[in-house]
Amino acid sequence: MSGKYLVTGGAGYVGSVVAAHLLEAGHEVTVLDNLSTGFREGVPAGAEFIEGDIRDAAKWLDAGESAYDAVLHFAAFSQVGESVVKPEKYWENNVGGTMALLAAMRSAGVRKLVFSSTAATYGEPEEVPIRETAPTAPTNPYGASKLAVDHMISGECAAHGLAAVSLRYFNVAGAYGDSGERHDPESHLIPLVLQVAQGRREAISVFGDDYPTPDGTCVRDYIHVADLAEAHLLALDAATSGEHLICNLGNGNGFSVREVIETVREVTGHPIPEVMAPRRAGDPAALVASADTAREKLGWNPSRADLAGIVADAWAFAQREAK
Amino acid sequence: MSGKYLVTGGAGYVGSVVAAHLLEAGHEVTVLDNLSTGFREGVPAGAEFIEGDIRDAAKWLDAGESAYDAVLHFAAFSQVGESVVKPEKYWENNVGGTMALLAAMRSAGVRKLVFSSTAATYGEPEEVPIRETAPTAPTNPYGASKLAVDHMISGECAAHGLAAVSLRYFNVAGAYGDSGERHDPESHLIPLVLQVAQGRREAISVFGDDYPTPDGTCVRDYIHVADLAEAHLLALDAATSGEHLICNLGNGNGFSVREVIETVREVTGHPIPEVMAPRRAGDPAALVASADTAREKLGWNPSRADLAGIVADAWAFAQREAK
Repeated sequence: MSGKYLVTGGAGYVGSVVAAHLLEAGHEVTVLDNLSTGFREGVPAGAEFIEGDIRDAAKWLDAGESAYDAVLHFAAFSQVGESVVKPEKYWENNVGGTMALLAAMRSAGVRKLVFSSTAATYGEPEEVPIRETAPTAPTNPYGASKLAVDHMISGECAAHGLAAVSLRYFNVAGAYGDSGERHDPESHLIPLVLQVAQGRREAISVFGDDYPTPDGTCVRDYIHVADLAEAHLLALDAATSGEHLICNLGNGNGFSVREVIETVREVTGHPIPEVMAPRRAGDPAALVASADTAREKLGWNPSRADLAGIVADAWAFAQREAK
Repeated sequence: MSGKYLVTGGAGYVGSVVAAHLLEAGHEVTVLDNLSTGFREGVPAGAEFIEGDIRDAAKWLDAGESAYDAVLHFAAFSQVGESVVKPEKYWENNVGGTMALLAAMRSAGVRKLVFSSTAATYGEPEEVPIRETAPTAPTNPYGASKLAVDHMISGECAAHGLAAVSLRYFNVAGAYGDSGERHDPESHLIPLVLQVAQGRREAISVFGDDYPTPDGTCVRDYIHVADLAEAHLLALDAATSGEHLICNLGNGNGFSVREVIETVREVTGHPIPEVMAPRRAGDPAALVASADTAREKLGWNPSRADLAGIVADAWAFAQREAK
């Protein structure tokens, strides 16, 4: 059955890929994005576009007969480093913005939400793989702001019958259509290593090789953005009034910094010089998801878990961008 | 050395007792309270009073030469049951209000904060007594909103040099001067049992007597409001720029529902009929603080830990109120 969906932050990386998947599945999509970090050209063809802020969401949600079936909420600042320096920006936008969005949804009678949460809500894990029952102890304002929103959504479900799913992403990577990973400044490993392959950076820094991991470098769980997007469509089906389902999204397979660099060498044919650097404060040795809940409750089955494929898609995107 | 302090929510129970202690110590005190749950007559004599909302805090904080040395922040909604039914009220006021307060403090250069946090940030404890390193897993929007503020304050300390202490209260009880415990509706055990003693209620309900506690009823950590107030003055001294200290405040001694009822019988001479009722959802068997951090870091030494004394003070307040 075809639905009508509002995608906040749909001009950003994950939001635009989810919007594209919704369109491909035959749904009607409106993207709401203030373009503070998103790109107008990232909004997939076929989606209606509103340039606006989620704090004014009531303007567009109070639509009477043409009401939305659900909101998929990606609009947020997401740079960990920036959040440490300007925490107020994260609280005011991510938390304050979601308060306004939930109020607008309540008022307009839109009672389904899929929220873009994050593994950063957990902080340094006591156990790996990380389950949804793990303690939440965010180590930066970005993670804390997302955790606050998760708590806010739980309250909204219990009090006002919202049907909600929070998806806690691990390391999203790869590309889909015209949407790939780019941050300013770039801080994510795969795009950074690809910049070395493109000659835009001389070498890649490896922060610590004495971690208790197989090769001594940090291990992260990379998940293809298209696999991630599919979970959002499944979440729309699984969402149940009055319940807040929280699911980790990751492959459950960790790859080390060294494995990522080696894979980029294989995919790009570039030697990728490395520079050893000391450990960074707050970098846990390993962050790997248990995605059992997503498999069981959403019927999710990621099919692009192969690191070479993820890197190849990211590389194709980076090469197109560089033109 | 005498200081100048802004006490938000200083017309409420704990805020007014802290304001009175600050005045007695020779400090200058301004109370900011919107009287949504506070009482104008609760503001201690000698304090300046501003009827206003923390969301407009910038109006009063931007005071140039006469700037405040610190803010003691009590303004918040604090009814757990209400928070479950109207979570948005808690997010908008407790979290949104504190965002505005922190922005006003930053802008006015007020760089010290003592925040009224709560044991409700922990949720159901894995271990008793509860230390500050315990996982935070609030089970209602009230606790979640206070936890969000604690996280917000941590970020403000790290980014902007705020000196802050969050005090996580267990069950505050007793009375001081003209300030005692009263909620509408009343939901706290000691005031409820005292209402029975006054003939305002026929009997006290005991929710479950099959808990794994010595007498089968729930155990809580009651702390005298005057002991609690003293910790706030010590926190003003202990607060250090760039650091966020979190301290539990409790006696470290738990008292069961039965012990409280028996103590009220002894203090008031009233028989206090009991009615057995089933367990309430979300009531942990025992909530008892480890207050070691407050003892070590603040030099706190509560001297009113005796339950009979706490109940006697609460009873004197209730009898004055009833006149």
